[in-house]
Amino acid sequence: MQIALDEANRARGLTSPNPLVGAVIVKDGQILSKGYHHRAGLPHAEVEALAPLGGKAPGATMYVNLEPCSHTGRTPPCSAAVIKAGIKRVVIGVQDPDPRVNGNGIRLLEEAGIEVTTGVLEQASIALNAAFFTAIQKRRPRVSLKVATSLDAQIATHTGDAKWLSGEPARKWAHQMRVEHDAILVGAGTVIADDPSLNVRHVEGRDPLRVVLDSTLRTPLTAKLYTAPLAEGTIVICTRPDQDKHSALLERGVKVFQVAEDESGRPDITEVLSVLKELGYLDIFVEGGGEIHGAFLQKQLVDRLYVVVTPWLIGEDGISAFRFPSPNKLSEAIRLTPIAHTQLGDDLMLTMEPHWEPSS
Amino acid sequence: MQIALDEANRARGLTSPNPLVGAVIVKDGQILSKGYHHRAGLPHAEVEALAPLGGKAPGATMYVNLEPCSHTGRTPPCSAAVIKAGIKRVVIGVQDPDPRVNGNGIRLLEEAGIEVTTGVLEQASIALNAAFFTAIQKRRPRVSLKVATSLDAQIATHTGDAKWLSGEPARKWAHQMRVEHDAILVGAGTVIADDPSLNVRHVEGRDPLRVVLDSTLRTPLTAKLYTAPLAEGTIVICTRPDQDKHSALLERGVKVFQVAEDESGRPDITEVLSVLKELGYLDIFVEGGGEIHGAFLQKQLVDRLYVVVTPWLIGEDGISAFRFPSPNKLSEAIRLTPIAHTQLGDDLMLTMEPHWEPSS
Repeated sequence: MQIALDEANRARGLTSPNPLVGAVIVKDGQILSKGYHHRAGLPHAEVEALAPLGGKAPGATMYVNLEPCSHTGRTPPCSAAVIKAGIKRVVIGVQDPDPRVNGNGIRLLEEAGIEVTTGVLEQASIALNAAFFTAIQKRRPRVSLKVATSLDAQIATHTGDAKWLSGEPARKWAHQMRVEHDAILVGAGTVIADDPSLNVRHVEGRDPLRVVLDSTLRTPLTAKLYTAPLAEGTIVICTRPDQDKHSALLERGVKVFQVAEDESGRPDITEVLSVLKELGYLDIFVEGGGEIHGAFLQKQLVDRLYVVVTPWLIGEDGISAFRFPSPNKLSEAIRLTPIAHTQLGDDLMLTMEPHWEPSS
Repeated sequence: MQIALDEANRARGLTSPNPLVGAVIVKDGQILSKGYHHRAGLPHAEVEALAPLGGKAPGATMYVNLEPCSHTGRTPPCSAAVIKAGIKRVVIGVQDPDPRVNGNGIRLLEEAGIEVTTGVLEQASIALNAAFFTAIQKRRPRVSLKVATSLDAQIATHTGDAKWLSGEPARKWAHQMRVEHDAILVGAGTVIADDPSLNVRHVEGRDPLRVVLDSTLRTPLTAKLYTAPLAEGTIVICTRPDQDKHSALLERGVKVFQVAEDESGRPDITEVLSVLKELGYLDIFVEGGGEIHGAFLQKQLVDRLYVVVTPWLIGEDGISAFRFPSPNKLSEAIRLTPIAHTQLGDDLMLTMEPHWEPSS
């Protein structure tokens, strides 16, 4: 199963909105073939693994990290191909939560007399496709926040000086994260202050979609994000757009979406996530700044938090990396579970997951 | 040498103001004896190691983490004892920076025809006696700050709710640190808010001295620290004492010292450290709160920073764990070097050392 997971992971960042799936066909302790799902529209992993065998593997066992599908989408159902190949046993990482599958694939296999085992490396199989599971279970994309901060959780001095010097290893890590997510999201303030490119530079890999939240379209048309070649991979989500700016952005190939505003006049985060899900982007990497982070946290719409701590102390009257008001009681503070901590050069990378109330 | 360091460390927290020293005597690849300095006034490690051999070890090699002394203090010079024992070779971790020794011990040994090697496990030998080296090189006690904070560097909500819930492993660690330091220091605010005992409870070991900075003696006489049995191990450092309180504290056995005040009306930190050094306390553990931490950091009088991060997010308008104003430029922020990071239950313990400008 670990080999199937490794196969699946080869397409990391490329299959969205489909999950990462790998399959391994084994007989008499020998691996006959392996395959993985390359990208949406191309064959599923099971079919990829059967292809070198001419679609035939009588008496063999197939290991696959996700339940084979039972429905015809852009490709025919995999369960049928597995049955036709004469596979004797199928070992599955985790049942597919997609309501079109959700046990139907397993049922089809069993009805054909195939022995099915489910739940092998189940947690790893879920973690591999965290965004896919979130999208189905919470009906929204998975949201990861990246916050770069000093040790005292500031991002700038009281004068606003924020020329940041996170180390080379932390920068490389952040670009790798861009490769592994479907979309990067920033606020208008970040575009105005930093004029970022939000493309992938320090590592190999494809650029994610770039998303700017900008209520009134106050970001300048001269921003790098709105200039070729970046413009066509950029979308802007607004609430009360300046019409001239709107037209100018469309001319440059930037897509513009309009959503309702929240109580602070910003794009409603829930609606933003709906738009991104509709467009097929399930794995969102939110890069800031502090107000955007605060908005996602206040709405409890964060699945994972990456905090890159640069070992500086700035002072209490700087600008906070987490801009939201504190509750009255400490017991109402946001609680997180530490997942990992890693030294990245002089910086420390903390991975955490908030535990929201069940109601969220 | 590692065995000598381990021997030395057996007296951790007990030898102040003397350093931790261990000695091992070896001949023909066999350890003949070991010894360590137990506490100030008792024999030094070299003499302890020679004692089981009747003071004689002809032709043997002695490993000792600090240069043998050359002067008569409360005990006679160790160099003389080593020479008299007939030791052939002495291997030393690091030269003693005490101006009364500082190479004189080595010179005496060499003049007696003993082969001397210095600088074996030198960094570990310096680290073992960090407070002793700081006290001599910087002419003040070594200062370690402990800060317990949320992930967003807050210690309370905007209403001041600060009922803290650091985990059991972090609490145990903090009590172990009390055992390993000569003195704990807190501000009047902490005494008023928390009424702490500042003794050692969750681990085995002796209580350190308790130091309260309280300009006007505004802390209540009913505080646990001023009540038996804690009172006699507590000192208060003030600037403009209330005379009635002053007398009442002395009656209870609390010692009270008066120092000059700084520009904010608080006890001048430099003078506080002078008082503690005069009293023989070289290794100070500052436990808070935020204003005290800020004062030590602003004066650049911090050698080590321990930050216990509890994985909560409180909000930007809470009370900061680091209360000092930010500089105009980010380049003037306090820089730190990460030394270690350790998971303590759900909390994360970061060990860092500030790098101050050479002028400090």
